[in-house]
Amino acid sequence: MQIAHLEITLAGDEKGNIPSYQMGSLFHGWLMERVSPDYARLLHQSEMKPFSQYVEKKGQEAIWHISALDRTACQEIIVPLLEEDFSCIEIRHKKEVFKAGEKKLVYSFASYKELADRYYLESTPSRVVKMEMVTPVSFRSGGEYQIFPSLHLIYQNLINRWNQFADKVSLEEKNLAATLAEHSFISGYRLETRYFPLEKIFIPAFAGRMSIKIAAPSPMVALINMLLGYSAFSGLGIKTSLGMGGVRVIEEKRGEWSGKRQAILKIHSSRKFLMIKYSYGD
Amino acid sequence: MQIAHLEITLAGDEKGNIPSYQMGSLFHGWLMERVSPDYARLLHQSEMKPFSQYVEKKGQEAIWHISALDRTACQEIIVPLLEEDFSCIEIRHKKEVFKAGEKKLVYSFASYKELADRYYLESTPSRVVKMEMVTPVSFRSGGEYQIFPSLHLIYQNLINRWNQFADKVSLEEKNLAATLAEHSFISGYRLETRYFPLEKIFIPAFAGRMSIKIAAPSPMVALINMLLGYSAFSGLGIKTSLGMGGVRVIEEKRGEWSGKRQAILKIHSSRKFLMIKYSYGD
Repeated sequence: MQIAHLEITLAGDEKGNIPSYQMGSLFHGWLMERVSPDYARLLHQSEMKPFSQYVEKKGQEAIWHISALDRTACQEIIVPLLEEDFSCIEIRHKKEVFKAGEKKLVYSFASYKELADRYYLESTPSRVVKMEMVTPVSFRSGGEYQIFPSLHLIYQNLINRWNQFADKVSLEEKNLAATLAEHSFISGYRLETRYFPLEKIFIPAFAGRMSIKIAAPSPMVALINMLLGYSAFSGLGIKTSLGMGGVRVIEEKRGEWSGKRQAILKIHSSRKFLMIKYSYGD
Repeated sequence: MQIAHLEITLAGDEKGNIPSYQMGSLFHGWLMERVSPDYARLLHQSEMKPFSQYVEKKGQEAIWHISALDRTACQEIIVPLLEEDFSCIEIRHKKEVFKAGEKKLVYSFASYKELADRYYLESTPSRVVKMEMVTPVSFRSGGEYQIFPSLHLIYQNLINRWNQFADKVSLEEKNLAATLAEHSFISGYRLETRYFPLEKIFIPAFAGRMSIKIAAPSPMVALINMLLGYSAFSGLGIKTSLGMGGVRVIEEKRGEWSGKRQAILKIHSSRKFLMIKYSYGD
Protein backbone atom coordinates (compact mmCIF):
# COMPACT_ATOMS: atom_id res chain seq x y z
CA MET A 1 0.00 0.00 0.00
CA GLN A 2 1.60 3.25 -1.19
CA ILE A 3 -1.32 5.70 -1.21
CA ALA A 4 -4.25 5.58 1.17
CA HIS A 5 -7.10 7.75 2.38
CA LEU A 6 -8.69 6.96 5.73
CA GLU A 7 -11.85 8.52 7.14
CA ILE A 8 -12.64 8.28 10.83
CA THR A 9 -15.99 9.40 12.19
CA LEU A 10 -15.64 11.33 15.45
CA ALA A 11 -18.35 12.00 18.00
CA GLY A 12 -18.56 15.25 19.95
CA ASP A 13 -17.03 15.39 23.42
CA GLU A 14 -18.94 15.33 26.73
CA LYS A 15 -19.78 19.02 26.49
CA GLY A 16 -21.07 18.55 22.97
CA ASN A 17 -18.06 20.19 21.27
CA ILE A 18 -17.63 18.89 17.76
CA PRO A 19 -14.17 19.00 16.15
CA SER A 20 -13.85 21.43 13.23
CA TYR A 21 -11.16 22.41 10.73
CA GLN A 22 -9.78 25.00 13.14
CA MET A 23 -8.47 22.12 15.28
CA GLY A 24 -6.29 20.81 12.44
CA SER A 25 -2.97 21.60 14.09
CA LEU A 26 -4.11 20.04 17.40
CA PHE A 27 -4.98 16.83 15.56
CA HIS A 28 -1.57 16.98 13.91
CA GLY A 29 0.01 17.27 17.36
CA TRP A 30 -1.90 14.25 18.63
CA LEU A 31 -0.85 12.24 15.57
CA MET A 32 2.83 13.13 16.00
CA GLU A 33 2.72 11.86 19.57
CA ARG A 34 1.46 8.49 18.35
CA VAL A 35 4.04 7.73 15.67
CA SER A 36 7.47 6.39 16.63
CA PRO A 37 9.91 9.10 17.78
CA ASP A 38 12.27 8.30 14.90
CA TYR A 39 9.53 8.75 12.34
CA ALA A 40 8.30 11.94 14.03
CA ARG A 41 11.85 13.32 13.79
CA LEU A 42 12.05 12.34 10.13
CA LEU A 43 8.73 14.04 9.41
CA HIS A 44 9.81 17.12 11.30
CA GLN A 45 12.89 17.42 9.10
CA SER A 46 11.17 16.83 5.77
CA GLU A 47 9.93 19.92 4.03
CA MET A 48 7.27 18.09 2.06
CA LYS A 49 5.29 15.79 4.34
CA PRO A 50 4.28 12.35 3.02
CA PHE A 51 0.84 12.69 4.59
CA SER A 52 -2.05 15.13 4.90
CA GLN A 53 -4.93 15.37 7.34
CA TYR A 54 -7.92 17.59 7.97
CA VAL A 55 -11.04 17.72 10.08
CA GLU A 56 -14.45 18.13 8.48
CA LYS A 57 -17.39 19.04 10.70
CA LYS A 58 -20.60 17.39 9.53
CA GLY A 59 -23.70 18.13 11.54
CA GLN A 60 -23.40 16.56 15.00
CA GLU A 61 -20.20 14.67 14.23
CA ALA A 62 -16.96 15.15 12.38
CA ILE A 63 -14.94 13.23 9.83
CA TRP A 64 -11.20 13.11 10.29
CA HIS A 65 -9.47 12.58 6.94
CA ILE A 66 -5.95 11.18 6.91
CA SER A 67 -4.02 10.40 3.73
CA ALA A 68 -0.63 8.78 3.34
CA LEU A 69 1.46 9.40 0.23
CA ASP A 70 4.19 6.79 0.49
CA ARG A 71 4.74 3.26 1.87
CA THR A 72 6.30 4.33 5.16
CA ALA A 73 3.53 6.82 5.90
CA CYS A 74 0.91 4.14 5.17
CA GLN A 75 2.72 1.84 7.61
CA GLU A 76 3.46 4.42 10.30
CA ILE A 77 0.26 6.46 10.21
CA ILE A 78 -2.65 4.69 8.52
CA VAL A 79 -2.13 1.13 9.82
CA PRO A 80 -1.93 2.09 13.53
CA LEU A 81 -5.11 4.18 13.22
CA LEU A 82 -6.90 1.13 11.88
CA GLU A 83 -5.92 -0.95 14.91
CA GLU A 84 -8.45 -1.62 17.62
CA ASP A 85 -6.42 -0.07 20.41
CA PHE A 86 -6.98 3.34 18.88
CA SER A 87 -10.48 4.37 19.90
CA CYS A 88 -10.31 8.04 20.82
CA ILE A 89 -8.43 11.27 20.32
CA GLU A 90 -7.49 13.28 23.35
CA ILE A 91 -6.69 16.96 22.87
CA ARG A 92 -4.96 17.41 26.21
CA HIS A 93 -4.61 21.12 26.73
CA LYS A 94 -8.20 21.61 25.71
CA LYS A 95 -9.31 18.65 27.85
CA GLU A 96 -11.39 17.31 25.01
CA VAL A 97 -11.80 13.64 24.16
CA PHE A 98 -13.37 12.63 20.86
CA LYS A 99 -14.44 9.02 20.42
CA ALA A 100 -13.64 7.38 17.11
CA GLY A 101 -16.58 5.66 15.47
CA GLU A 102 -16.50 4.13 11.99
CA LYS A 103 -13.12 3.82 10.29
CA LYS A 104 -13.24 3.66 6.53
CA LEU A 105 -10.23 3.07 4.30
CA VAL A 106 -11.86 4.92 1.38
CA TYR A 107 -8.99 4.47 -1.05
CA SER A 108 -5.82 2.47 -1.09
CA PHE A 109 -3.52 2.07 -4.05
CA ALA A 110 -0.71 -0.42 -4.24
CA SER A 111 1.39 2.02 -6.27
CA TYR A 112 1.39 5.37 -8.09
CA LYS A 113 1.27 3.39 -11.30
CA GLU A 114 -2.05 1.91 -10.15
CA LEU A 115 -3.38 5.40 -9.40
CA ALA A 116 -2.16 6.72 -12.75
CA ASP A 117 -3.71 3.80 -14.61
CA ARG A 118 -7.07 4.65 -13.13
CA TYR A 119 -6.97 7.89 -15.13
CA TYR A 120 -5.00 6.81 -18.18
CA LEU A 121 -7.06 3.72 -18.87
CA GLU A 122 -10.26 5.78 -18.76
CA SER A 123 -11.52 6.04 -22.35
CA THR A 124 -13.32 9.36 -21.98
CA PRO A 125 -11.73 11.38 -19.19
CA SER A 126 -13.74 14.22 -17.59
CA ARG A 127 -13.50 17.63 -19.22
CA VAL A 128 -15.07 19.31 -16.23
CA VAL A 129 -13.70 18.76 -12.74
CA LYS A 130 -15.46 20.14 -9.71
CA MET A 131 -13.42 20.72 -6.60
CA GLU A 132 -14.63 21.35 -3.12
CA MET A 133 -12.15 23.07 -0.84
CA VAL A 134 -13.38 21.59 2.43
CA THR A 135 -10.77 23.25 4.66
CA PRO A 136 -8.95 26.54 3.89
CA VAL A 137 -6.55 26.47 0.95
CA SER A 138 -3.72 28.95 0.54
CA PHE A 139 -0.61 29.32 -1.61
CA ARG A 140 2.59 31.24 -1.09
CA SER A 141 3.71 33.05 -4.19
CA GLY A 142 5.78 36.19 -4.63
CA GLY A 143 6.27 36.32 -0.87
CA GLU A 144 2.56 36.63 -0.27
CA TYR A 145 -0.38 34.42 0.60
CA GLN A 146 -2.63 33.93 -2.42
CA ILE A 147 -6.29 34.01 -1.44
CA PHE A 148 -7.61 33.48 -4.96
CA PRO A 149 -7.10 30.18 -6.77
CA SER A 150 -4.68 30.04 -9.69
CA LEU A 151 -4.53 26.93 -11.84
CA HIS A 152 -0.83 27.44 -12.45
CA LEU A 153 -0.08 27.37 -8.71
CA ILE A 154 -2.46 24.47 -8.16
CA TYR A 155 -0.83 22.30 -10.84
CA GLN A 156 2.70 23.23 -9.76
CA ASN A 157 1.91 22.35 -6.18
CA LEU A 158 0.52 18.94 -7.15
CA ILE A 159 3.31 18.15 -9.64
CA ASN A 160 5.92 18.85 -6.96
CA ARG A 161 4.27 16.46 -4.52
CA TRP A 162 3.68 13.82 -7.13
CA ASN A 163 7.33 13.87 -8.19
CA GLN A 164 8.47 13.82 -4.57
CA PHE A 165 6.55 10.69 -3.61
CA ALA A 166 5.83 8.74 -6.80
CA ASP A 167 8.97 6.64 -6.99
CA LYS A 168 8.50 4.92 -10.31
CA VAL A 169 6.21 7.29 -12.19
CA SER A 170 7.34 10.88 -12.42
CA LEU A 171 6.16 13.86 -14.42
CA GLU A 172 9.09 15.24 -16.35
CA GLU A 173 8.35 18.12 -18.66
CA LYS A 174 9.51 21.70 -18.62
CA ASN A 175 6.81 24.22 -17.78
CA LEU A 176 4.26 21.46 -17.36
CA ALA A 177 2.19 23.44 -14.86
CA ALA A 178 2.05 26.44 -17.23
CA THR A 179 1.09 24.21 -20.16
CA LEU A 180 -1.70 22.58 -18.18
CA ALA A 181 -2.92 26.00 -17.00
CA GLU A 182 -3.03 27.19 -20.62
CA HIS A 183 -5.32 24.32 -21.52
CA SER A 184 -7.80 24.69 -18.70
CA PHE A 185 -9.66 27.47 -16.91
CA ILE A 186 -11.82 28.13 -13.89
CA SER A 187 -15.34 28.36 -15.30
CA GLY A 188 -17.26 28.88 -12.10
CA TYR A 189 -16.72 29.27 -8.38
CA ARG A 190 -18.29 30.08 -5.08
CA LEU A 191 -15.49 30.92 -2.70
CA GLU A 192 -14.85 32.89 0.43
CA THR A 193 -11.86 33.83 2.53
CA ARG A 194 -11.14 31.93 5.72
CA TYR A 195 -8.36 32.57 8.18
CA PHE A 196 -6.75 29.33 9.37
CA PRO A 197 -5.62 29.41 13.04
CA LEU A 198 -2.06 28.22 13.61
CA GLU A 199 -0.62 28.76 17.06
CA LYS A 200 -0.63 32.52 17.32
CA ILE A 201 -1.25 33.50 13.73
CA PHE A 202 -4.05 33.28 11.21
CA ILE A 203 -3.19 32.25 7.68
CA PRO A 204 -5.26 33.91 4.92
CA ALA A 205 -6.91 31.26 2.77
CA PHE A 206 -10.05 30.42 0.81
CA ALA A 207 -12.67 27.69 0.88
CA GLY A 208 -15.68 26.74 -1.23
CA ARG A 209 -16.20 25.25 -4.65
CA MET A 210 -14.94 25.71 -8.16
CA SER A 211 -15.28 24.11 -11.56
CA ILE A 212 -12.34 23.59 -13.89
CA LYS A 213 -12.93 23.14 -17.61
CA ILE A 214 -10.30 21.41 -19.66
CA ALA A 215 -9.80 22.23 -23.34
CA ALA A 216 -7.04 19.85 -24.31
CA PRO A 217 -6.40 16.56 -26.09
CA SER A 218 -7.43 13.44 -24.15
CA PRO A 219 -4.08 12.44 -22.65
CA MET A 220 -3.65 15.90 -21.18
CA VAL A 221 -7.20 15.73 -19.85
CA ALA A 222 -6.27 12.45 -18.19
CA LEU A 223 -3.17 14.03 -16.68
CA ILE A 224 -5.10 17.01 -15.26
CA ASN A 225 -7.73 14.66 -13.86
CA MET A 226 -4.99 12.56 -12.31
CA LEU A 227 -3.27 15.54 -10.68
CA LEU A 228 -6.49 17.02 -9.35
CA GLY A 229 -7.59 13.56 -8.22
CA TYR A 230 -4.27 13.24 -6.39
CA SER A 231 -5.05 16.43 -4.43
CA ALA A 232 -7.71 14.47 -2.55
CA PHE A 233 -4.78 12.56 -1.01
CA SER A 234 -1.99 15.09 -0.92
CA GLY A 235 -4.11 18.06 0.00
CA LEU A 236 -3.70 21.35 -1.85
CA GLY A 237 -1.48 24.34 -1.12
CA ILE A 238 0.37 25.01 2.10
CA LYS A 239 0.19 23.36 5.57
CA THR A 240 -1.70 20.27 4.41
CA SER A 241 -0.30 18.21 7.29
CA LEU A 242 -1.73 20.76 9.74
CA GLY A 243 -5.30 20.63 8.49
CA MET A 244 -5.29 23.12 5.62
CA GLY A 245 -5.98 22.31 1.98
CA GLY A 246 -8.43 19.45 2.47
CA VAL A 247 -10.16 18.98 -0.89
CA ARG A 248 -12.69 16.72 -2.56
CA VAL A 249 -12.77 16.17 -6.29
CA ILE A 250 -15.74 15.35 -8.49
CA GLU A 251 -15.16 14.51 -12.12
CA GLU A 252 -18.15 15.53 -14.15
CA LYS A 253 -18.92 15.83 -17.81
CA ARG A 254 -17.29 13.47 -20.22
CA GLY A 255 -17.01 13.82 -23.95
CA GLU A 256 -14.60 14.74 -26.67
CA TRP A 257 -12.96 18.10 -27.03
CA SER A 258 -12.53 19.53 -30.49
CA GLY A 259 -10.34 22.56 -30.53
CA LYS A 260 -8.98 24.52 -33.46
CA ARG A 261 -5.46 23.47 -32.66
CA GLN A 262 -4.79 19.89 -33.53
CA ALA A 263 -2.63 18.35 -30.92
CA ILE A 264 -0.46 15.32 -30.75
CA LEU A 265 0.42 14.28 -27.26
CA LYS A 266 2.65 11.33 -26.65
CA ILE A 267 3.07 9.55 -23.40
CA HIS A 268 6.16 7.45 -22.90
CA SER A 269 5.53 5.15 -20.03
CA SER A 270 8.55 3.27 -18.88
CA ARG A 271 9.37 1.67 -15.60
CA LYS A 272 11.07 4.85 -14.57
CA PHE A 273 9.20 7.74 -16.10
CA LEU A 274 5.81 8.76 -17.30
CA MET A 275 7.20 11.34 -19.68
CA ILE A 276 4.92 13.73 -21.42
CA LYS A 277 5.82 15.47 -24.63
CA TYR A 278 3.71 17.88 -26.60
CA SER A 279 3.78 18.92 -30.20
CA TYR A 280 1.22 21.14 -31.81
CA GLY A 281 0.23 21.35 -35.44
CA ASP A 282 -1.82 24.15 -37.01
CA MET B 1 -26.09 68.82 -11.06
CA GLN B 2 -23.19 66.87 -12.54
CA ILE B 3 -23.36 63.53 -10.72
CA ALA B 4 -26.54 61.91 -9.50
CA HIS B 5 -27.82 58.57 -8.32
CA LEU B 6 -31.53 57.83 -8.55
CA GLU B 7 -33.34 54.85 -7.06
CA ILE B 8 -36.80 53.88 -8.26
CA THR B 9 -38.82 51.22 -6.48
CA LEU B 10 -40.58 48.90 -8.92
CA ALA B 11 -43.51 46.62 -8.18
CA GLY B 12 -43.90 43.20 -9.77
CA ASP B 13 -46.09 42.88 -12.88
CA GLU B 14 -49.60 41.39 -13.03
CA LYS B 15 -48.27 37.85 -13.07
CA GLY B 16 -46.10 38.56 -10.07
CA ASN B 17 -42.83 38.72 -12.04
CA ILE B 18 -40.27 40.86 -10.27
CA PRO B 19 -37.51 42.54 -12.29
CA SER B 20 -34.02 41.20 -11.62
CA TYR B 21 -30.49 42.00 -12.77
CA GLN B 22 -30.87 39.69 -15.76
CA MET B 23 -33.26 42.27 -17.25
CA GLY B 24 -30.57 44.97 -17.27
CA SER B 25 -30.28 45.21 -21.05
CA LEU B 26 -34.07 45.37 -21.46
CA PHE B 27 -34.21 48.30 -19.04
CA HIS B 28 -31.41 49.93 -21.03
CA GLY B 29 -33.49 49.49 -24.18
CA TRP B 30 -36.52 51.10 -22.57
CA LEU B 31 -34.37 54.01 -21.37
CA MET B 32 -32.88 54.61 -24.82
CA GLU B 33 -36.37 54.86 -26.29
CA ARG B 34 -37.23 57.62 -23.82
CA VAL B 35 -34.28 59.94 -24.38
CA SER B 36 -34.22 62.29 -27.38
CA PRO B 37 -33.11 60.61 -30.62
CA ASP B 38 -30.12 62.94 -30.88
CA TYR B 39 -28.93 62.05 -27.42
CA ALA B 40 -29.54 58.33 -28.03
CA ARG B 41 -27.37 58.58 -31.14
CA LEU B 42 -24.65 60.38 -29.20
CA LEU B 43 -24.71 57.71 -26.48
CA HIS B 44 -24.60 54.97 -29.06
CA GLN B 45 -21.43 56.46 -30.52
CA SER B 46 -19.62 57.07 -27.26
CA GLU B 47 -17.46 54.24 -26.06
CA MET B 48 -17.63 55.25 -22.42
CA LYS B 49 -21.22 55.97 -21.43
CA PRO B 50 -21.93 58.91 -19.10
CA PHE B 51 -24.48 56.85 -17.16
CA SER B 52 -24.92 53.47 -15.52
CA GLN B 53 -27.98 51.53 -14.46
CA TYR B 54 -28.84 48.20 -12.86
CA VAL B 55 -31.78 46.35 -11.42
CA GLU B 56 -31.67 44.98 -7.89
CA LYS B 57 -34.33 42.48 -6.84
CA LYS B 58 -35.31 42.91 -3.20
CA GLY B 59 -37.93 40.54 -1.87
CA GLN B 60 -41.27 41.24 -3.54
CA GLU B 61 -40.09 44.39 -5.32
CA ALA B 62 -37.08 45.70 -7.16
CA ILE B 63 -34.93 48.81 -7.03
CA TRP B 64 -33.86 50.32 -10.31
CA HIS B 65 -30.61 52.26 -9.87
CA ILE B 66 -29.70 54.92 -12.42
CA SER B 67 -26.63 57.14 -12.17
CA ALA B 68 -25.58 60.03 -14.37
CA LEU B 69 -21.93 61.05 -14.63
CA ASP B 70 -22.11 64.40 -16.39
CA ARG B 71 -24.41 67.40 -16.72
CA THR B 72 -26.06 66.32 -19.96
CA ALA B 73 -26.80 62.85 -18.65
CA CYS B 74 -28.33 64.34 -15.50
CA GLN B 75 -30.50 66.52 -17.70
CA GLU B 76 -31.39 63.91 -20.30
CA ILE B 77 -31.81 60.84 -18.12
CA ILE B 78 -32.30 61.63 -14.42
CA VAL B 79 -34.58 64.69 -14.69
CA PRO B 80 -37.17 63.03 -17.01
CA LEU B 81 -37.37 59.98 -14.72
CA LEU B 82 -38.19 62.28 -11.81
CA GLU B 83 -41.12 63.79 -13.71
CA GLU B 84 -44.63 62.71 -12.86
CA ASP B 85 -45.52 61.52 -16.36
CA PHE B 86 -43.12 58.63 -15.90
CA SER B 87 -44.95 56.08 -13.82
CA CYS B 88 -44.20 52.67 -15.31
CA ILE B 89 -41.73 50.70 -17.36
CA GLU B 90 -43.02 48.57 -20.17
CA ILE B 91 -40.85 45.75 -21.45
CA ARG B 92 -42.72 45.29 -24.71
CA HIS B 93 -41.52 42.02 -26.16
CA LYS B 94 -41.95 40.36 -22.79
CA LYS B 95 -45.33 42.04 -22.30
CA GLU B 96 -44.37 43.06 -18.78
CA VAL B 97 -45.29 46.35 -17.14
CA PHE B 98 -43.60 47.39 -13.90
CA LYS B 99 -45.12 50.26 -11.93
CA ALA B 100 -42.74 52.81 -10.49
CA GLY B 101 -43.26 53.54 -6.80
CA GLU B 102 -40.98 55.73 -4.72
CA LYS B 103 -38.33 57.76 -6.53
CA LYS B 104 -35.33 58.71 -4.45
CA LEU B 105 -32.52 60.97 -5.62
CA VAL B 106 -30.05 59.35 -3.21
CA TYR B 107 -27.06 61.48 -4.21
CA SER B 108 -26.56 64.54 -6.31
CA PHE B 109 -23.35 66.50 -6.57
CA ALA B 110 -23.06 69.89 -8.21
CA SER B 111 -19.58 69.05 -9.45
CA TYR B 112 -16.75 66.54 -9.32
CA LYS B 113 -14.92 68.98 -7.07
CA GLU B 114 -17.79 68.66 -4.59
CA LEU B 115 -17.58 64.86 -4.71
CA ALA B 116 -13.78 64.98 -4.30
CA ASP B 117 -14.07 67.37 -1.35
CA ARG B 118 -16.29 64.91 0.43
CA TYR B 119 -13.31 62.55 0.62
CA TYR B 120 -10.44 65.02 0.84
CA LEU B 121 -11.95 67.08 3.63
CA GLU B 122 -12.47 63.93 5.71
CA SER B 123 -9.91 64.05 8.52
CA THR B 124 -9.60 60.30 9.04
CA PRO B 125 -10.48 58.49 5.82
CA SER B 126 -11.46 54.80 5.99
CA ARG B 127 -8.66 52.26 5.81
CA VAL B 128 -11.10 49.44 5.15
CA VAL B 129 -13.64 49.69 2.34
CA LYS B 130 -16.30 47.04 1.90
CA MET B 131 -17.81 46.63 -1.54
CA GLU B 132 -20.92 44.78 -2.48
CA MET B 133 -21.09 43.72 -6.11
CA VAL B 134 -24.87 43.76 -6.44
CA THR B 135 -25.00 42.84 -10.12
CA PRO B 136 -22.33 40.83 -12.00
CA VAL B 137 -18.96 42.54 -12.44
CA SER B 138 -16.50 41.57 -15.14
CA PHE B 139 -13.33 42.98 -16.67
CA ARG B 140 -11.69 42.43 -20.03
CA SER B 141 -7.96 42.01 -19.78
CA GLY B 142 -5.52 40.15 -21.99
CA GLY B 143 -8.38 39.37 -24.37
CA GLU B 144 -10.24 37.46 -21.68
CA TYR B 145 -13.02 38.04 -19.21
CA GLN B 146 -11.63 38.27 -15.69
CA ILE B 147 -13.89 36.49 -13.20
CA PHE B 148 -11.73 37.28 -10.17
CA PRO B 149 -11.36 40.83 -8.88
CA SER B 150 -8.02 42.61 -9.32
CA LEU B 151 -7.44 45.93 -7.59
CA HIS B 152 -5.24 47.11 -10.45
CA LEU B 153 -8.04 46.59 -12.98
CA ILE B 154 -10.62 48.09 -10.62
CA TYR B 155 -8.61 51.28 -10.07
CA GLN B 156 -7.70 51.62 -13.75
CA ASN B 157 -11.34 51.25 -14.73
CA LEU B 158 -12.44 53.94 -12.29
CA ILE B 159 -9.58 56.34 -13.10
CA ASN B 160 -10.47 56.13 -16.81
CA ARG B 161 -14.09 57.01 -16.13
CA TRP B 162 -13.23 59.74 -13.68
CA ASN B 163 -10.88 61.41 -16.15
CA GLN B 164 -13.40 61.06 -18.94
CA PHE B 165 -16.23 62.83 -17.14
CA ALA B 166 -14.67 65.02 -14.44
CA ASP B 167 -14.12 68.18 -16.42
CA LYS B 168 -12.26 70.29 -13.88
CA VAL B 169 -10.67 67.69 -11.61
CA SER B 170 -8.60 65.02 -13.27
CA LEU B 171 -6.22 62.38 -11.98
CA GLU B 172 -2.94 62.77 -13.75
CA GLU B 173 -0.17 60.48 -12.63
CA LYS B 174 1.71 57.77 -14.44
CA ASN B 175 0.94 54.25 -13.24
CA LEU B 176 -1.53 55.60 -10.71
CA ALA B 177 -3.63 52.41 -10.76
CA ALA B 178 -0.56 50.25 -10.13
CA THR B 179 0.60 52.52 -7.29
CA LEU B 180 -2.80 52.40 -5.62
CA ALA B 181 -2.92 48.60 -6.04
CA GLU B 182 0.49 48.33 -4.37
CA HIS B 183 -0.81 50.16 -1.34
CA SER B 184 -4.00 48.19 -0.84
CA PHE B 185 -5.11 44.58 -0.90
CA ILE B 186 -8.23 42.42 -0.82
CA SER B 187 -8.38 41.12 2.74
CA GLY B 188 -11.58 39.15 2.56
CA TYR B 189 -14.28 38.15 0.11
CA ARG B 190 -17.30 36.03 -0.51
CA LEU B 191 -17.79 35.86 -4.24
CA GLU B 192 -19.33 33.64 -6.84
CA THR B 193 -19.46 33.51 -10.61
CA ARG B 194 -22.55 34.74 -12.42
CA TYR B 195 -23.22 34.71 -16.13
CA PHE B 196 -24.84 37.95 -17.32
CA PRO B 197 -27.35 37.46 -20.16
CA LEU B 198 -26.85 39.82 -23.10
CA GLU B 199 -28.90 39.12 -26.20
CA LYS B 200 -27.65 35.73 -27.21
CA ILE B 201 -24.54 35.44 -25.08
CA PHE B 202 -23.66 35.09 -21.42
CA ILE B 203 -20.83 37.18 -20.05
CA PRO B 204 -18.74 35.53 -17.30
CA ALA B 205 -18.69 37.72 -14.21
CA PHE B 206 -18.69 37.67 -10.42
CA ALA B 207 -20.89 39.02 -7.65
CA GLY B 208 -20.75 39.15 -3.87
CA ARG B 209 -18.73 41.05 -1.32
CA MET B 210 -15.15 41.97 -0.64
CA SER B 211 -13.12 44.04 1.77
CA ILE B 212 -10.23 46.21 0.68
CA LYS B 213 -7.58 47.25 3.19
CA ILE B 214 -5.51 50.32 2.49
CA ALA B 215 -1.95 50.64 3.78
CA ALA B 216 -0.99 54.09 2.58
CA PRO B 217 -0.60 57.66 3.76
CA SER B 218 -3.83 59.53 4.34
CA PRO B 219 -4.12 61.44 1.06
CA MET B 220 -3.79 58.20 -0.89
CA VAL B 221 -6.37 56.62 1.40
CA ALA B 222 -8.68 59.52 0.55
CA LEU B 223 -8.05 59.01 -3.16
CA ILE B 224 -8.80 55.28 -3.01
CA ASN B 225 -11.94 55.97 -1.01
CA MET B 226 -12.96 58.58 -3.56
CA LEU B 227 -12.42 56.26 -6.54
CA LEU B 228 -14.22 53.33 -4.92
CA GLY B 229 -16.98 55.68 -3.79
CA TYR B 230 -17.28 56.88 -7.39
CA SER B 231 -17.92 53.28 -8.51
CA ALA B 232 -21.33 53.51 -6.83
CA PHE B 233 -22.18 56.03 -9.59
CA SER B 234 -20.11 54.89 -12.54
CA GLY B 235 -20.54 51.18 -11.97
CA LEU B 236 -17.54 48.87 -12.14
CA GLY B 237 -16.05 46.95 -15.04
CA ILE B 238 -17.70 46.35 -18.40
CA LYS B 239 -21.29 46.91 -19.66
CA THR B 240 -22.32 49.17 -16.78
CA SER B 241 -24.94 50.88 -18.92
CA LEU B 242 -26.53 47.49 -19.61
CA GLY B 243 -26.98 46.44 -16.00
CA MET B 244 -23.63 44.92 -15.12
CA GLY B 245 -21.23 46.20 -12.46
CA GLY B 246 -23.77 47.65 -10.03
CA VAL B 247 -21.90 48.16 -6.75
CA ARG B 248 -22.44 49.53 -3.28
CA VAL B 249 -19.62 50.86 -1.13
CA ILE B 250 -19.32 50.89 2.65
CA GLU B 251 -16.43 52.72 4.26
CA GLU B 252 -15.52 51.06 7.53
CA LYS B 253 -12.65 51.33 9.95
CA ARG B 254 -10.94 54.63 10.43
CA GLY B 255 -7.60 55.26 12.05
CA GLU B 256 -4.03 56.02 11.24
CA TRP B 257 -1.78 53.80 9.23
CA SER B 258 1.83 53.40 10.27
CA GLY B 259 3.92 51.66 7.69
CA LYS B 260 7.64 51.10 7.52
CA ARG B 261 7.99 53.30 4.50
CA GLN B 262 7.54 56.94 5.29
CA ALA B 263 5.61 58.58 2.59
CA ILE B 264 5.04 62.11 1.53
CA LEU B 265 2.11 62.59 -0.72
CA LYS B 266 1.26 65.97 -2.06
CA ILE B 267 -1.95 66.95 -3.68
CA HIS B 268 -1.98 69.96 -5.93
CA SER B 269 -5.51 71.07 -6.35
CA SER B 270 -5.98 73.71 -8.97
CA ARG B 271 -8.98 74.69 -10.98
CA LYS B 272 -7.84 72.35 -13.68
CA PHE B 273 -6.11 69.42 -12.08
CA LEU B 274 -6.11 67.42 -8.93
CA MET B 275 -2.55 66.26 -9.44
CA ILE B 276 -1.06 63.60 -7.28
CA LYS B 277 2.65 63.24 -6.78
CA TYR B 278 4.41 60.65 -4.67
CA SER B 279 7.80 60.61 -3.11
CA TYR B 280 9.02 57.94 -0.78
CA GLY B 281 11.73 58.10 1.85
CA ASP B 282 13.33 55.09 3.51
